[in-house]
Amino acid sequence: MQETKVVLPDREMPKQWYNIMADMPNLPKPPLHPGTKQPIGPQDLSPIFPMALIEQEVSTQRWIDIPDEVRNIYGLWRPSPLYRAHRLEAALGTPAKIYYKYEGVSPAGSHKPNTSIPQAFYNRQAGIRRIATETGAGQWGSAMALAGTMFGLEVTVYMVRVSYNQKPYRRIAMETWGATVQPSPSIITNSGKKILEMDPSSPGSLGIAISEAVEDAATHDDTNYALGSVLNHVLLHQTVIGIEAKKQFEMVGDYPDVIVGCCGGGSNLGGAAFPFLQDKINGKQLRVIAVEPTSCPTLTKGEFRYDFGDTAGLTPLMMMYTLGHDFMPPGIHAGGLRYHADSPLVCQLYHDKLIEAIAYGQTACFEAAITFAKSEGIIPAPESSHAIRGAIDEALRAKEEGKQKTIFFNLSGHGYLDLTAYADYLAGKLEDYAYPDEMIKEALKKLPVV
Amino acid sequence: MQETKVVLPDREMPKQWYNIMADMPNLPKPPLHPGTKQPIGPQDLSPIFPMALIEQEVSTQRWIDIPDEVRNIYGLWRPSPLYRAHRLEAALGTPAKIYYKYEGVSPAGSHKPNTSIPQAFYNRQAGIRRIATETGAGQWGSAMALAGTMFGLEVTVYMVRVSYNQKPYRRIAMETWGATVQPSPSIITNSGKKILEMDPSSPGSLGIAISEAVEDAATHDDTNYALGSVLNHVLLHQTVIGIEAKKQFEMVGDYPDVIVGCCGGGSNLGGAAFPFLQDKINGKQLRVIAVEPTSCPTLTKGEFRYDFGDTAGLTPLMMMYTLGHDFMPPGIHAGGLRYHADSPLVCQLYHDKLIEAIAYGQTACFEAAITFAKSEGIIPAPESSHAIRGAIDEALRAKEEGKQKTIFFNLSGHGYLDLTAYADYLAGKLEDYAYPDEMIKEALKKLPVV
Repeated sequence: MQETKVVLPDREMPKQWYNIMADMPNLPKPPLHPGTKQPIGPQDLSPIFPMALIEQEVSTQRWIDIPDEVRNIYGLWRPSPLYRAHRLEAALGTPAKIYYKYEGVSPAGSHKPNTSIPQAFYNRQAGIRRIATETGAGQWGSAMALAGTMFGLEVTVYMVRVSYNQKPYRRIAMETWGATVQPSPSIITNSGKKILEMDPSSPGSLGIAISEAVEDAATHDDTNYALGSVLNHVLLHQTVIGIEAKKQFEMVGDYPDVIVGCCGGGSNLGGAAFPFLQDKINGKQLRVIAVEPTSCPTLTKGEFRYDFGDTAGLTPLMMMYTLGHDFMPPGIHAGGLRYHADSPLVCQLYHDKLIEAIAYGQTACFEAAITFAKSEGIIPAPESSHAIRGAIDEALRAKEEGKQKTIFFNLSGHGYLDLTAYADYLAGKLEDYAYPDEMIKEALKKLPVV
Repeated sequence: MQETKVVLPDREMPKQWYNIMADMPNLPKPPLHPGTKQPIGPQDLSPIFPMALIEQEVSTQRWIDIPDEVRNIYGLWRPSPLYRAHRLEAALGTPAKIYYKYEGVSPAGSHKPNTSIPQAFYNRQAGIRRIATETGAGQWGSAMALAGTMFGLEVTVYMVRVSYNQKPYRRIAMETWGATVQPSPSIITNSGKKILEMDPSSPGSLGIAISEAVEDAATHDDTNYALGSVLNHVLLHQTVIGIEAKKQFEMVGDYPDVIVGCCGGGSNLGGAAFPFLQDKINGKQLRVIAVEPTSCPTLTKGEFRYDFGDTAGLTPLMMMYTLGHDFMPPGIHAGGLRYHADSPLVCQLYHDKLIEAIAYGQTACFEAAITFAKSEGIIPAPESSHAIRGAIDEALRAKEEGKQKTIFFNLSGHGYLDLTAYADYLAGKLEDYAYPDEMIKEALKKLPVV
């Protein structure tokens, strides 16, 4: 029988997360207070985060223990399988070996529960009763709703209005797990009201929804905020992906030459790649490629400077490649990749040339996704299709060059709840957007000077 | 760490299917030709099935080899995990141990690919170019579409019209894998045209869609028919579920006292239970419970007699518990359980009291599904929620009686593509249907006399 899955035994599930801050040649510049523009301290974050997560946010300790309570829930779907994509390789006729880690096996269908579960755990431990968070297409909101029910926390999700209306399935999933879902901008928060006054039919954006959730958490004592990407502790939690993958590569006696991940806020890419990047920092030959949409080309077209994480300017200023915090990306189907900036960790590593980046239009990504679905079976999330496009192009280049190469990508989630996007693609209705350079320049002019 | 998953190593994936016909105290009465009403022979089936499957249909050999080509594809998701439902047990406060096998890990999200894959393989091997089949809610059609792309077969799916209109997601999934989907009744076949003449707005039924697919296959030389349940060879293929589960129970040193499965055509119940039923036939203490909807109470209210498998009377007559082949079940959300009869194997075993049956209304099942989703994380398919209801009631009875008990159920699929049903349930919009006894009696009067 052909070996397709590399299954890590449950007892080998990681007991610690990997913190790349212990190994980075240059640490990201510190986040700044949105008002004073001075570096923030733990006390600035404590109104919305529990101290355990704040400590992880700033820690430079290389390995951080995963609590047993978290591992017990991880065990519902982890370790996730590493696949050798024999059938995709054959379909492409490539000499390259393609591996992918499949994170769609989680109950929420994506990699997001890797961090929602520990976030819920630490908040519960700190006596928090409710979590306020935001979601774009709904992957993060689903993951947080799932984590809430696992640890007995109420969850309020501010969901970008255009997704709330167009993608009812993930909203229903969140409600099935017991969460309350508010279309954003909402009239519940001041940030939401302000946006609606300016534009009553605002489709919303991730930046606006973050403002609403942060405000909700900051104004309720029993409520904290949770973020599904961008922050250091989020990427830390996601490293279970890469740590498992490294062990799985060891099991088959292989090692990637190239790692590909889609990049919105950076958490699935970071999670899959950081444990390998440790080796690269220590001299190993390895390429890491962040794939982003041409409609939201943060790394490939943004500027590396301080910007807010949200639209209203409530969050600390972070050093990121950004398109400007009021950037309003077109409504592509990969909702999870529509963030105006990227994780400071990914940005610093990109700046230091440890990570490369490439941007694709969505039709090229759906084409790759269908090639994948027809060969490997799994229908990928639109976000993940960007990683597949990148991996396929690497494999085709290996074919042209007649080179053996080992490609590893993270299949961050399945596309069951994004099938209307496939229908649009199959009907030829999808368009590509390349965000115009002039508009990016305009948006960047408005950035705060620090 | 708490042990939740029982993972069978890939090398332990079954090499043979288990054929319960080798062990049944009474074999089902033979299928009869729809015209002559005489027992059919292989030549009667050869216009629509490949000989390898016809041989499996009538074989009484206990173990039948699984071809390597099939095991290679099975390996994309099999062996599937067996879960100990610690968190559900805690939520119920039951002393019972609850285990479930999770078949939603297949790329189509249900147990159906366990048989669509070998069916595609044997058809391809026999030189067939195209498969015609039917689907209700779309689980079987998705599985056949997936299998088609894996073995390079064209697939045409006749999809019950009400599902085609109301549940576009599974249709899109089928199209993503490259299948053609026709709403049934269609104007492509004579069977479809006849129904539409009588009722131009017919919502369709599984029986009608089967007639259309059988007619399509019978009238095209390069096309065969494939059925997702009911037939002996289908249940044979599904026994990978129970064979794996038995090994997984051995791994944890346990054995079920009760096995629960939802029962539409009978394939997931049969697949999970038959390998254990072998032990029961040989004297082991064990209960097997088929759970069906009150709206389609085949085993609990039907009569055990010869009936057609389809509405138009094109299929052989089979000895089944039936509600009559023109039975039109109400549009409940568990579309996969809306079949007018059951697998002859399951029916014979029920008749011989080796299997019990119980019927539930859909609201009780959705209530159970939500309890499950909130404790175990996975959102179940509406069909599978019937098994959960049955298992939960067994666990609650164990609690009342203060008895230790080991309960095993098959979670046949996930509910990502059925979330609108959850929305209806959460909004209090779902109704229960108990199919009226008088209408069943009327329908049974019309059955063919043999």
